[in-house]
Amino acid sequence: MKPASLRKYRPFHEKFDIRLPDRQWPDRHIERAPIWCSVDLRDGNQALAIPMNVEEKLEYFQLLCDIGFKQIEIGFPSASDTEFRFFRRLVDEKLIPADVTVQCLVQAREHLIQRTFEALEGVPRSIVHLYNSTSPLQRKVTFGNASKEKIKAIAVDGAKLVRKLADQVTDGEILFQYSPESFSDTELDYAYDICKSVTEIWGPTKESPIILNLPATVEWATPNIHADMIEWCCRQLKKDGLRDKVQVSLHTHNDRGTGTAATELAILAGADRVEGTLFGNGERTGNLDLVNVALNLNSHGIATGLDFSNLDEIRMTYQRLTRMAVHERHPYAGELVFTAFSGSHQDAIKKGMDLIDSDSVEWAVPYLTIDPQDIGRNYEAIIRINSQSGKGGVAYVLDREHGLDLPKSMHPEVGGIVSRQADELGRELTIEEIRESFFNEFVNRNAPLSLLDHDECHVENANAEGILVHQRAKRGNEYGWTFSLSHAGEKSVVEGYGNGPINALAHALEKRGLKDFKVTDYRSHAITDGSAADAAAYVQIVREGDNRSVWGCGLDPSIELAGLKALVSAYNRLHH
Amino acid sequence: MKPASLRKYRPFHEKFDIRLPDRQWPDRHIERAPIWCSVDLRDGNQALAIPMNVEEKLEYFQLLCDIGFKQIEIGFPSASDTEFRFFRRLVDEKLIPADVTVQCLVQAREHLIQRTFEALEGVPRSIVHLYNSTSPLQRKVTFGNASKEKIKAIAVDGAKLVRKLADQVTDGEILFQYSPESFSDTELDYAYDICKSVTEIWGPTKESPIILNLPATVEWATPNIHADMIEWCCRQLKKDGLRDKVQVSLHTHNDRGTGTAATELAILAGADRVEGTLFGNGERTGNLDLVNVALNLNSHGIATGLDFSNLDEIRMTYQRLTRMAVHERHPYAGELVFTAFSGSHQDAIKKGMDLIDSDSVEWAVPYLTIDPQDIGRNYEAIIRINSQSGKGGVAYVLDREHGLDLPKSMHPEVGGIVSRQADELGRELTIEEIRESFFNEFVNRNAPLSLLDHDECHVENANAEGILVHQRAKRGNEYGWTFSLSHAGEKSVVEGYGNGPINALAHALEKRGLKDFKVTDYRSHAITDGSAADAAAYVQIVREGDNRSVWGCGLDPSIELAGLKALVSAYNRLHH
Repeated sequence: MKPASLRKYRPFHEKFDIRLPDRQWPDRHIERAPIWCSVDLRDGNQALAIPMNVEEKLEYFQLLCDIGFKQIEIGFPSASDTEFRFFRRLVDEKLIPADVTVQCLVQAREHLIQRTFEALEGVPRSIVHLYNSTSPLQRKVTFGNASKEKIKAIAVDGAKLVRKLADQVTDGEILFQYSPESFSDTELDYAYDICKSVTEIWGPTKESPIILNLPATVEWATPNIHADMIEWCCRQLKKDGLRDKVQVSLHTHNDRGTGTAATELAILAGADRVEGTLFGNGERTGNLDLVNVALNLNSHGIATGLDFSNLDEIRMTYQRLTRMAVHERHPYAGELVFTAFSGSHQDAIKKGMDLIDSDSVEWAVPYLTIDPQDIGRNYEAIIRINSQSGKGGVAYVLDREHGLDLPKSMHPEVGGIVSRQADELGRELTIEEIRESFFNEFVNRNAPLSLLDHDECHVENANAEGILVHQRAKRGNEYGWTFSLSHAGEKSVVEGYGNGPINALAHALEKRGLKDFKVTDYRSHAITDGSAADAAAYVQIVREGDNRSVWGCGLDPSIELAGLKALVSAYNRLHH
Repeated sequence: MKPASLRKYRPFHEKFDIRLPDRQWPDRHIERAPIWCSVDLRDGNQALAIPMNVEEKLEYFQLLCDIGFKQIEIGFPSASDTEFRFFRRLVDEKLIPADVTVQCLVQAREHLIQRTFEALEGVPRSIVHLYNSTSPLQRKVTFGNASKEKIKAIAVDGAKLVRKLADQVTDGEILFQYSPESFSDTELDYAYDICKSVTEIWGPTKESPIILNLPATVEWATPNIHADMIEWCCRQLKKDGLRDKVQVSLHTHNDRGTGTAATELAILAGADRVEGTLFGNGERTGNLDLVNVALNLNSHGIATGLDFSNLDEIRMTYQRLTRMAVHERHPYAGELVFTAFSGSHQDAIKKGMDLIDSDSVEWAVPYLTIDPQDIGRNYEAIIRINSQSGKGGVAYVLDREHGLDLPKSMHPEVGGIVSRQADELGRELTIEEIRESFFNEFVNRNAPLSLLDHDECHVENANAEGILVHQRAKRGNEYGWTFSLSHAGEKSVVEGYGNGPINALAHALEKRGLKDFKVTDYRSHAITDGSAADAAAYVQIVREGDNRSVWGCGLDPSIELAGLKALVSAYNRLHH
């Protein structure tokens, strides 16, 4: 903003001086989940450029039930034909599960309250959610400088009418909820005063409490202020002997990007119940994101009663019905939130994942707060490769996607080559490109040296009884092989002896004057993921002159041939 | 999550017991902006599937300078060719403004520190940002159960080398920054112990402080815990006589969706400096969103030194260079965040905007924390119309877009008709559709009644001197008009008298036996927005039998004819 614009704004504490020096909430921990109420079909839906039609709302309602919501605000049944028809469909077609309570929002105006009760006919159990705006700004602007008394009277009269009409309902149970809308910028004592009056009219008991919902309709301040306000109200209720007869409910918005924090801190401050929407859909910057808060609780081992174990599917249904996007970096649900591109992060994640496979029950992987599989995501996206990536990440992808468990000391060489390619291309590499890059550089390289054929050497030896026996050719402890080689176009067949075929090939190369290296490491493993090759072998050689070390890799159904191919690859990389 | 999965997770306080019962931060207010450091080109860029190329990075760097950042982390100059070339381009082409300090991240490893100093050749002023991982998880997983001492030694050795190499630099000023990476899940006293040792090696003074950056590399806990940790460190620094020689810096991520809150609360806790990125780009769920925090401060009247007065343009540049989306509900920058669809919100916003136009300096519009114009957005999107919208919103759009300032008592009738149409179409209405809907229903309706022509009645009267004078026909105070009408196809010319043409037309209709109504209201105004018509008139009539009241509207260059058309429209609506 330009400095000149700043004159239009004042700090929140200059408008509302919230003081609670002996606040308790910062010393508490969240120990259990709040009661959840989804307002997707009301606050969420009303903020869509294309609101859901009746069929879409029915599907969304089912989604909410499937996730496990037991309280669902279904709208203003009197606001429009769509709202009304939707609500009656739910009722008439008996689509509301027995353990789900539907909630209807209604402004504290006589005719709207009347119509809401008409809509409620035949509903077994519902919450009538009464509200009116209470903030000084709304009193001034929207209600033409209405007095505090007048605004309070709106709430009180509304509460009385709700009480009266509820008493006349014989075929269903009516629960009560009141919201001083714009609580977040209403004088705290005044907001509480209205809430108290409404509570007294409704006369709740411990067994049959009412809900006081204290909305941050607009987020005006840092989230600690919100928590102070909620704790203050909880304490007042206690002083007035009402605390156990009232469920204190939160309804935060996200204008300052701190709606989730405001809810969490206010749960610490004593709130019992939380209203919000999936993925934070809602007016302007959105409502509280229920997915976010519930999974935050899960990540601390706290059960929520909500099942987001198939979050991708929920996200796709949500996107289809609301036509809203879920951002790539949206906590838990975003496409990229379990992805590391950075080399050092990948390295740590790979190491952590390796330990998890074999180790403890507890999730402990650097950079990942939860196991992606617990919300129905796989490990595929955890590590993706671009120019910022390093050895650990490339090794991880080759292992996970292609079953190639490279020796640790081979990682830097492979990582360097693959990430250089990403740097040159200036973009992320696909899994296929990573494989190709690895294969082109390390696997089955055939120039200048290639292995055309090989076989064990056999000899006919006389045994103790003088009978000729066909046996492996052996010198001391070393067996013999013959290798059919081509080097720079020149073919030859050479014999070599060794403790194994790799060693023998090295000796054969020595005979041909081609051996300027030592074999310094060798690893092999079966590939079990159904790839065409069944064995992978890795050979490291070091040149005797300059100590340059290179790895090669060979893949073959025969583990023996895989090893030989790995040595040939290493040789060719050294002599390229 | 499924209950079975929860066993893998524990509450944060069971792992790290942060206690600070006498914390001060919740009683403080943010009074000034922190020092800002953009890490877009490092932490942001490394998290992109397609990292920026050199040209893109140069453009991004320029964008950051234009916004007003004075500290910019430009990357790991030693990490890849792109990083290195980019950094040298900045230096060699003298693209770094004199008042901007570039920051280079480097792991505490000898060869990387060496190369970083090579890259810094010729840079007038830079921050060398040293880091190593310190958390128990990283010590165990990444460093194979390395001891605390060993990990501390990495930092200390790195700090010594940085100190030594910095002492050898003669052509530039080197500032020091240290991060215990993964501070957010490192034992607090241990993290501080390392920080203190590094600080002592670097020997800062009040005039030449160092930066201790305490990253929430992964967000593991609620944001109040983060604030407690920062306040604890600030106090320890004070105890050790180091507080005024150290800038305490924040670097939050957003894994729990509370990164912005964590930063704000930690500023309260004493932090001097904040690292983050535009729109929160960065690893996984992203880094701190600098736009969000800076505009939060602005919204409380606090200057930040950052200029987001053209946020849309910044957003578009950002999107083009990073290929990342900015979500529709992103605070301040999202497409929908200044938009209200809900009827009651629109009503309040319309009233608030009306008062702002004429009233105070202070911004006070319900539901809008800031004036969209202060960040370069217009009012166009504030109110959009769908089936959830109401009278206030429709009236606002007709006024703003078409210059039609409807009488207040006409709003419900118009709002009802327009939002019914939106409900039927099941989607948002365009501005053009709203106009069309209004015109079809209310404006210049010509059946069954139409006004073909009208004229003033004139008579020739003898004046005092007996000369015939051409004069307006008059009876008492009423002037006469003739109206050429068509009703249900039947044409007639009728004379009528009245205090104005509308009144006269009503009388003329009475003569034809068509008057079953009373005119109860009349308003007109000029249309000043260059629309084809220059005057708008609104007439309300009430039927005498059933008291049904309807409004009509007439538009015409002549204000007189506009009024007559309005009456005809009202009549036709009543008799439709």
